[in-house]
Amino acid sequence: MKLKLKNVFLVYFLVSLTGLLYALLQLGQPCDCSPHLRAAAEHLRRKDLKISQLQAELGRPPPAPAQPPEPEALPTIYVVTPTYARLVQKAELVRLSQTLSLVPRLHWVVVEDAETPTPLVSALLAASGLRFTHLVALTPKGQRLREGEPGWVRPRGVEQRNRALDWLRGKETAVGGERDPPPEGARGVVYFADDDNTYSRELFEEMRGTRGVSVWPVGLVGGLRFEGPQVQGGQVVGFHTAWEPDRPFPLDMAGFAVSLPLLLSRPGAQFDPTAPRGHLESSLLSHLIDPKDLEPRASNCTRVLVWHTRTEKPKMKQEEQLQRLGRGSDPGIEV
Amino acid sequence: MKLKLKNVFLVYFLVSLTGLLYALLQLGQPCDCSPHLRAAAEHLRRKDLKISQLQAELGRPPPAPAQPPEPEALPTIYVVTPTYARLVQKAELVRLSQTLSLVPRLHWVVVEDAETPTPLVSALLAASGLRFTHLVALTPKGQRLREGEPGWVRPRGVEQRNRALDWLRGKETAVGGERDPPPEGARGVVYFADDDNTYSRELFEEMRGTRGVSVWPVGLVGGLRFEGPQVQGGQVVGFHTAWEPDRPFPLDMAGFAVSLPLLLSRPGAQFDPTAPRGHLESSLLSHLIDPKDLEPRASNCTRVLVWHTRTEKPKMKQEEQLQRLGRGSDPGIEV
Repeated sequence: MKLKLKNVFLVYFLVSLTGLLYALLQLGQPCDCSPHLRAAAEHLRRKDLKISQLQAELGRPPPAPAQPPEPEALPTIYVVTPTYARLVQKAELVRLSQTLSLVPRLHWVVVEDAETPTPLVSALLAASGLRFTHLVALTPKGQRLREGEPGWVRPRGVEQRNRALDWLRGKETAVGGERDPPPEGARGVVYFADDDNTYSRELFEEMRGTRGVSVWPVGLVGGLRFEGPQVQGGQVVGFHTAWEPDRPFPLDMAGFAVSLPLLLSRPGAQFDPTAPRGHLESSLLSHLIDPKDLEPRASNCTRVLVWHTRTEKPKMKQEEQLQRLGRGSDPGIEV
Repeated sequence: MKLKLKNVFLVYFLVSLTGLLYALLQLGQPCDCSPHLRAAAEHLRRKDLKISQLQAELGRPPPAPAQPPEPEALPTIYVVTPTYARLVQKAELVRLSQTLSLVPRLHWVVVEDAETPTPLVSALLAASGLRFTHLVALTPKGQRLREGEPGWVRPRGVEQRNRALDWLRGKETAVGGERDPPPEGARGVVYFADDDNTYSRELFEEMRGTRGVSVWPVGLVGGLRFEGPQVQGGQVVGFHTAWEPDRPFPLDMAGFAVSLPLLLSRPGAQFDPTAPRGHLESSLLSHLIDPKDLEPRASNCTRVLVWHTRTEKPKMKQEEQLQRLGRGSDPGIEV
């Protein structure tokens, strides 16, 4: 009996151990849906492409941007982009529009430095597949940068950004796209995005929940690797910058976003075209918030998600030479 | 002893039985992807609806099979991007990866000019959501651009592009991402896309059907508004360019794509690092095709869908000043 039980015990032990090991190995295999989901995502992307092509053909903005879960529940991000005619304008706007097309619930407010809308910008907006509003605001002569003057002498895009603020407040008429300002009580965020910077799509999700004014670092600006708020205990306690650290808000235009309700509750808040160098951002923000109440984003301002990139002005020496010979680039082809 | 063994047996029996039952129950749960797939199918259905509505609005009958071609039916576009460490590298790669994420059925082949893969590029690729292959190829010392030398003195990225060709031919090992080269007989297109140019998403659909070598204009290159093939009766009959119009292929790197089967059928076709200025593209293309057989795209080469933009090198004067004071930008923050 003693021997028999031992044998039974041993056999049972070995069999059950093998079974358990096998079962545990099987449990270790994760449930892998990713190939199916990747295929589905490919399908969706293709259909999105098709939809935007068709919409471009119809020449109308689509009713809603890309498809997150229940986009109606998200606050709209109003991205304000001043732009002016130059050789790289179309390239920059194409690049930016493609970045913005990755962001759900976004409304692009493009303000041309022009008297009337240009065909280039109008066609680009219509084909972008984005929700947009097209405005124009000509920079007054006295504020315009003169030939050869470095860019920092006069702040650029002031008139255009203020025109966008006017539209948001229902005081300005659009020349294209959605003409109605945001409905009363709408949740939203306003961000000033120049057409030459580089934006990570992640940045937009960082700013979406802005209650007052949210802030984050900006890469490659002010002669530094980055400029940005210094945060302690979740609060902004200072700013990393080389230029006049004592400015009320030593922030770059690309380094903050404002909640729409806050902006609408201060009808006098706008950019001051006469602000001294580096004080343009402060001229708006001083109307809106106390620096200590800024909301740090991007992991307490430790991640760079926007870069102040500058695109070189292309040299056109050969173009001029060929034009003199009557063989310049076909002016009928838009660049 | 007898009693003791029996007790041990009983306890072991009960414990292992419980364990086995639990494991078997868990195994009974199927790997359940269906909620995800149902949601995706629902999305797809809604998009199909949208597409047919839009097509109806356009007053055109939908194509015979109501569904667009399955993504699996599309040739893969292999986008080869050489890259090297510099201040704007991350910004450029983020911007490019976001553009590429809009293109279905795309495989990004990134080749670092480095001995080993860098954490910056590895992390960026992993986070991109793209299908990718990560390669490294250090530029030999003699071929490297010296400090202060203008960019056109030596062709850049030659070693890296050739390394990508080696990988496509199964002769090179990847350091990250998908390691296997395209399967035998795969349909595909190869495009050389530097990380600083600007690409319209439309460009990729133009090149997808490439049978041999397809071509189109490139904006803001060679001192001209654009360079590009001249087309008559659907055939390339010349090239608009200012620099050596008699080169065999006066094309910019961004101005052509090659079909994968053609490339694989000519194992000797690669870029020649010793090619004279402006002849690098010709050194590859001469192995592949006769200029008269080039396939014009982008509405017979009348639309500019890629721009040879250059990003300015950021100035770091203030950074150096602050570093001397021990207050430089936090090196722990990646820019």
